[in-house]
Amino acid sequence: MNKLLIVGTVAFDAIETPFGKTDKILGGAGTYIGLSASFFNLKSAIVSVVGDDFPQDYLDLLTSKNIDISGLEIVKGGKTFFWSGRYHNDLNSRDTLDTQLNTLADFQPKVPQNFKDADVVMLGNLHPNIQISVLDQMEKKPKLVVLDTMNFWMDCALPELKEVMKRIDVITINDEEARQLSGEYSLVKAAAKIHEMGPKYVVIKKGEHGALLFHNSEVFFAPALPLEEVFDPTGAGDTFAGGFAGFITQSENISFENMKNAIIYGSNLASFCVEKFGTERMAKLEKSEVNKRLKQFKSLTQFDIVLED
Amino acid sequence: MNKLLIVGTVAFDAIETPFGKTDKILGGAGTYIGLSASFFNLKSAIVSVVGDDFPQDYLDLLTSKNIDISGLEIVKGGKTFFWSGRYHNDLNSRDTLDTQLNTLADFQPKVPQNFKDADVVMLGNLHPNIQISVLDQMEKKPKLVVLDTMNFWMDCALPELKEVMKRIDVITINDEEARQLSGEYSLVKAAAKIHEMGPKYVVIKKGEHGALLFHNSEVFFAPALPLEEVFDPTGAGDTFAGGFAGFITQSENISFENMKNAIIYGSNLASFCVEKFGTERMAKLEKSEVNKRLKQFKSLTQFDIVLED
Repeated sequence: MNKLLIVGTVAFDAIETPFGKTDKILGGAGTYIGLSASFFNLKSAIVSVVGDDFPQDYLDLLTSKNIDISGLEIVKGGKTFFWSGRYHNDLNSRDTLDTQLNTLADFQPKVPQNFKDADVVMLGNLHPNIQISVLDQMEKKPKLVVLDTMNFWMDCALPELKEVMKRIDVITINDEEARQLSGEYSLVKAAAKIHEMGPKYVVIKKGEHGALLFHNSEVFFAPALPLEEVFDPTGAGDTFAGGFAGFITQSENISFENMKNAIIYGSNLASFCVEKFGTERMAKLEKSEVNKRLKQFKSLTQFDIVLED
Repeated sequence: MNKLLIVGTVAFDAIETPFGKTDKILGGAGTYIGLSASFFNLKSAIVSVVGDDFPQDYLDLLTSKNIDISGLEIVKGGKTFFWSGRYHNDLNSRDTLDTQLNTLADFQPKVPQNFKDADVVMLGNLHPNIQISVLDQMEKKPKLVVLDTMNFWMDCALPELKEVMKRIDVITINDEEARQLSGEYSLVKAAAKIHEMGPKYVVIKKGEHGALLFHNSEVFFAPALPLEEVFDPTGAGDTFAGGFAGFITQSENISFENMKNAIIYGSNLASFCVEKFGTERMAKLEKSEVNKRLKQFKSLTQFDIVLED
């Protein structure tokens, strides 16, 4: 089995949407990526940090999904990273109500020895210096390195972000972030400029409007599945990235053609994530449900026009 | 050859975008629908009205595309409908600067005798009573009636709009209008409610985010082609509708599967429309260009995941 190394937050979230609100529940980019990637046939490990306030139940959930948590540091007397946010009525935007870095403030990632030869590395949204540190610890060059990031790091750690971008293969960011990073409004032009910063593949996430995959002059589009109701968008982007990285890890094929399949899987898994609060839906997701939805993606996008020459 | 009957404005537009501005140029829903549908192998006619200020060159352009203009009334001493608008920087929204109904104010549509048995009727955006009058003049039930409308009629002629909706097969509206008409934010729910108002097929246009086709519980999605630059979005929605109606007319197949192809063609043709001001690009479009872009749509959307059972 191939190995996927994941770095990303494992955290508490408190979420308000028009449909309700939660107390502190399981969250974090690393968590969502790990749960999503666990759908595939692979070995995965999460490198992250929590405090000793982090419940054993949550750790058990991760290990029940065959995720190696030997690189998940538990700081004695420390508190787990906490994020709280409130979504607007259209669920497309949100306000951060509270961010408590806690143990994340001094986080030094430690890659487990048996994952220093991982086939694929998924650098979840974190300070670029942490992402660089993980790459520095690898003893074998990964077949593929995928990076997720956000506007926060463009605002306050742009030089470091540009450094890590030179060392990765695929970047996943949302449309507004792509525009900010490139200074271009057109996503085609934005992708071209981001491509010049390092990554050979640029994935632009557009939320309910799907995702675009750019590679040189080629482009592929995966729609989001039209849903009756989006309940909670938290973690959808990370679930998308985890599905992408997980599928690539399982299939051992980093061609553009196979990346098309990978972003369809990412979009597929993300469509489940938003159906319930937090990780609730992902924690109980069955393979048969994902396969059924894959058929929906096919009928949603495939057409049979015969091309004339 | 099958017949397509088009009703819609033939007009003057004055357009401002971040890239420049035009004087009075050729515009109108009927014009864009006609130019787009003329790409297909069919007989088409436009029912509309202009003043005698309307240039012969514009009439010649329409007839050069094999569009029958015997139903295009030219009012002596009358002035042609005029619309002027300014697009915002993102090109996704615009302000109307001026609207002069002129001859459109008293327009009584007259369907040419040899189009009263048209196979497909495309009711472009106009007062619902004009759309109803066209349907009343048909001597043979069309195989398919497609209706385009906008929020303006929902605000000031909703009962009449609901009447015409009972007599059509396909409605094309944009996402905001679908939400307004249905009172539902979710487009899946909006389409279901609009379906109950009459049309068996609901096409929701999302501009740069593509278009959705709903039929009972089935849904298909056509992306917009990612473009380096959108120059002028005027007429894109009408060009999309004209491509849809034109393809259906040519192919004589009103199945859901074939409508998938029709909205891909609609999206394909609309992607050209936005590349230049007004009708400039559509007036000179070659079949080979459309076929080439169809290949781009295939590679943009088609994937080869083998489904497990």
